[in-house]
Amino acid sequence: MSLIFMRVSGVLILLVFSNFVNALWPLPQNWTKGTSLLRVYPSIIIKYDPSLLNSYIDQLIESAKHRLQVFLLDEKHLSPNVKFQIPEDEKFDSILTLSCIQIEITDNNKRDQDDLEETNIDWTYNKEMKEGISLGTDESYELIIPDKKEDDTELVAYLKAPTVYGILHGLTTFSQLLYYNRSEENSGLFLPFAPHHINDFPKFMHRGLLLDTSRNFYPVKEILKTLDVMSWNKMNVFHWHIVDATSWPVVSEKYPELSEKGAYDSKKMIYTKRDIRIVDEYARTRGIRIIPEFDMPGHTHAIAASMPEIMTCIDMYPDWDQYSSDPPSGQLNPAIPETYTFLNELVPEIASYFTDKFYHTGGDEVNLNCWESLAQQNDHTKESLLEKFVTSLYSIIANEGKTPITWHEMVTEHNLELPKDTVVQVWRNSAMVKKVVEKGYKVVTGSGDYWYLDCGYGGWYGNNIKGRSWCDPYKTWQKIYSYNPIEGLSDEEAKFVIGGEVLLWSEQSDSTNYEQQLWPRSSAAAEILWSGPEDINGNRRVPDKDALKRLNDWRFRMVERGVRAEPLQPLWCVRTGRCDM
Amino acid sequence: MSLIFMRVSGVLILLVFSNFVNALWPLPQNWTKGTSLLRVYPSIIIKYDPSLLNSYIDQLIESAKHRLQVFLLDEKHLSPNVKFQIPEDEKFDSILTLSCIQIEITDNNKRDQDDLEETNIDWTYNKEMKEGISLGTDESYELIIPDKKEDDTELVAYLKAPTVYGILHGLTTFSQLLYYNRSEENSGLFLPFAPHHINDFPKFMHRGLLLDTSRNFYPVKEILKTLDVMSWNKMNVFHWHIVDATSWPVVSEKYPELSEKGAYDSKKMIYTKRDIRIVDEYARTRGIRIIPEFDMPGHTHAIAASMPEIMTCIDMYPDWDQYSSDPPSGQLNPAIPETYTFLNELVPEIASYFTDKFYHTGGDEVNLNCWESLAQQNDHTKESLLEKFVTSLYSIIANEGKTPITWHEMVTEHNLELPKDTVVQVWRNSAMVKKVVEKGYKVVTGSGDYWYLDCGYGGWYGNNIKGRSWCDPYKTWQKIYSYNPIEGLSDEEAKFVIGGEVLLWSEQSDSTNYEQQLWPRSSAAAEILWSGPEDINGNRRVPDKDALKRLNDWRFRMVERGVRAEPLQPLWCVRTGRCDM
Repeated sequence: MSLIFMRVSGVLILLVFSNFVNALWPLPQNWTKGTSLLRVYPSIIIKYDPSLLNSYIDQLIESAKHRLQVFLLDEKHLSPNVKFQIPEDEKFDSILTLSCIQIEITDNNKRDQDDLEETNIDWTYNKEMKEGISLGTDESYELIIPDKKEDDTELVAYLKAPTVYGILHGLTTFSQLLYYNRSEENSGLFLPFAPHHINDFPKFMHRGLLLDTSRNFYPVKEILKTLDVMSWNKMNVFHWHIVDATSWPVVSEKYPELSEKGAYDSKKMIYTKRDIRIVDEYARTRGIRIIPEFDMPGHTHAIAASMPEIMTCIDMYPDWDQYSSDPPSGQLNPAIPETYTFLNELVPEIASYFTDKFYHTGGDEVNLNCWESLAQQNDHTKESLLEKFVTSLYSIIANEGKTPITWHEMVTEHNLELPKDTVVQVWRNSAMVKKVVEKGYKVVTGSGDYWYLDCGYGGWYGNNIKGRSWCDPYKTWQKIYSYNPIEGLSDEEAKFVIGGEVLLWSEQSDSTNYEQQLWPRSSAAAEILWSGPEDINGNRRVPDKDALKRLNDWRFRMVERGVRAEPLQPLWCVRTGRCDM
Repeated sequence: MSLIFMRVSGVLILLVFSNFVNALWPLPQNWTKGTSLLRVYPSIIIKYDPSLLNSYIDQLIESAKHRLQVFLLDEKHLSPNVKFQIPEDEKFDSILTLSCIQIEITDNNKRDQDDLEETNIDWTYNKEMKEGISLGTDESYELIIPDKKEDDTELVAYLKAPTVYGILHGLTTFSQLLYYNRSEENSGLFLPFAPHHINDFPKFMHRGLLLDTSRNFYPVKEILKTLDVMSWNKMNVFHWHIVDATSWPVVSEKYPELSEKGAYDSKKMIYTKRDIRIVDEYARTRGIRIIPEFDMPGHTHAIAASMPEIMTCIDMYPDWDQYSSDPPSGQLNPAIPETYTFLNELVPEIASYFTDKFYHTGGDEVNLNCWESLAQQNDHTKESLLEKFVTSLYSIIANEGKTPITWHEMVTEHNLELPKDTVVQVWRNSAMVKKVVEKGYKVVTGSGDYWYLDCGYGGWYGNNIKGRSWCDPYKTWQKIYSYNPIEGLSDEEAKFVIGGEVLLWSEQSDSTNYEQQLWPRSSAAAEILWSGPEDINGNRRVPDKDALKRLNDWRFRMVERGVRAEPLQPLWCVRTGRCDM
């Protein structure tokens, strides 16, 4: 226990701390703070000039204001390691109240434009869609919370950002500065350590979370909840691994039989166009892009339920492992025109359901053995069949004005020459990052050795007593936090790493347990992606006491917000910080 | 997919099965079944003659009837691998309805008495308390569900058991035989595979689950929910590891300062006498015994918050590991009379809160190093101090008419001579079972190599990136199921193993995630303890396809009942059974 005096407009207010930190998560890039305590009421005014904004941006701010209001009204978070205590002869009456947050959007995209010119990504899409979040949108913001009034005016905080997305992040940060005093006298929200001056921006522009909704199904409401929690962690990409070998929940208007026969339940376990639009809009309102993945040509067994004629190696049993990485086996047949007709019809339709410029093509774990006899019959090699398939798929995507993302095997294993704007996602292990960069592609990383959230729960193949995850062990928050996405890269190479993702593959996850698996571990990755693997002095960020304290506090705040985030330690350790080894 | 015809009172009803099994869990000892389909309505009558029963037993049956009624009304479980399908030219009208369950308690305790005479446990307590569940209570039952009516009478099922606890298990089994047909026509509950004849009894009399409510706190309602799920799995002991070094949530009337200063929150994170009585009564109504553990003399740091004068090695930091297995360090001082005054006052009070005859004394991980200087100052050895402490504690417990349980170190490490009726609980590894049996003590087993549910989530000590659980890896259901509590014991030795427990230590668990960690993995242990490690033909029970199918089905039924039991596989695998390796 240490006693800290906080000066409040000339009066001393005593706070009893044990081990207190302000739990901003992710940590802002630049942050100075003071020793004053402010009071905040739910009636705090959030002010801006709507005449300067178009209606979409106005709507985003109104929506963010509403969400903040809910926290102000409902959230009664007190860090497990802080207590408010008032000296007997003092009153809280003299504490200054923060009465207003003044918002300003400066619409200065300059910093980002500079960055972007160094890349080879086509940013015209971004400019066209400038109302919406996209890769490279400026998310920076400045938040100033003073502790002194000028004359008789009110105490006003200032939140400035080039874009509305910076404003959203600034309001998120603001919400994390508040603590609730539960003592009978003077209960309510307080904002300690004012004045604050925060100047913040993300290290990586792609900060994602992958959820696999095929192995097991998730209702839309769970996805929406996940988007909320992502936004509080300043994550900006929901990678929706929406179909896979096991089920095809997406309802296509052109091929309704895909979900009628390929979904787990053709009425209840599906995502309609309307569902997808709702998810997409909900995400974009929170500054999150939805990137859909329609994994092809492998991982497509679910298509066989309705269209076996365009498939090969369907559900081989029991020797599925000769034809597929996981059961059930099945790959699209790249040798027949019907497959390309299917792609030409389906891909433009499903791609159009999503707003984002990027479309994830999948492309992992293609089993060439499956195509062995096909190749022979068609005067092809297995690799040339793959190339034919990929070329065709990518040209469909390009025609839709979208940019492809692919899993890394396409370049690291099959050595295909892909369009140079293709983003390559690394999954197998982190060593792949350098390999992909050396081939000149942009990279999104998040691999089985660091950021797979499904590792460590044992094997799901049948009855094997010694069954293990291929990516054992369980990734602790410390392990996740220790990952540097640009480890071992030169400064030039590092520019190719646009970000990373944590991944939850759902073989052993569904609505019953995914939330605990996602949080707070995804927060650890969120901080590495936002704040960066190094602090402002160039020191490697490590899962030290400061990070642990902040993450513990942040976890408790997420629980207060209704998230089933799992505990990292006994509460005694959280409070005292005395459980180190 | 295989098509199976079910004969129903002369008509053929077509059911489409893929991979169907009747998901009784745990599996009954003797079970024959047929091919008929019966209909069951929530209005089914459960009949018995209350004049033959005393009021307590009558109350238990009424309560169990009510719980079954809730399932009949609300539960719409359809195994993920079964579909009802009616041939077009048939109607369900001709299906027989099961209209009544006739209950009879025979009160014939003979089988158990025979078993008990071979043991050295004092069964007089059991006889005195024969209204209540206790160790060795006969839990067997016989359930007969015919598929033919006699003349114009109604179709009646018979449930017979020597005690009411057998009746409770029989009703639980009955509830697992029902499946809900969701099709628009003829929706409702059906009971396939009649006639059933089930003759069932447990292999082990102690089938427990340990929950640690000290590392992190659990509200009473979570404990009550856990008791419900335990009862559905025919588990009969809730081992309440209620206090530990980190917090003392139990409110003592004699020493109120223990929880006032030692609970995480002296108002909200406590268990009052009334709370405990509610939990105890709720459990016993479901045939579950509550065994409280007040772990002493180690794991007692929480007492130091109010009574540092009877403690030693309090919260040594940072070298706590010299004095304790976990932080925070602290042990009772066995060298001063004040400690014994405390025990003499406290133990009878808290022991009296619980109905069961057994009282768990703890006794694990005593750190003798902590008592080094104490021993020197008091003309003792460290071991003689421990013996003095244990002798005194056990005599207090005996005076209260209770029997002690202890963790195994007392006999395997410290070689103390304990009263021969002491039950010794093994935790460190399964090899300890034989060592304890050889010393002539009854054993409860459940060790870190098989039945620890908290393993595999990484270390909780601070910031270590490579932090692992001491008991890695995660215990999969297959691993849990593969444990034989009497492995390597002679028939004579095996009699000393009265049962086992799965254990959830709560360093990284609380209300947010414990349910997923408990279920369905605890069910795997429940089947080993009830059905036994061998089937009726003496074959070792293994986590084969049959067990996997039943456990998958049982998991989905538990989810339907509101339990956040985690999924074991993609739904595709559950349905097809084709994910073996």
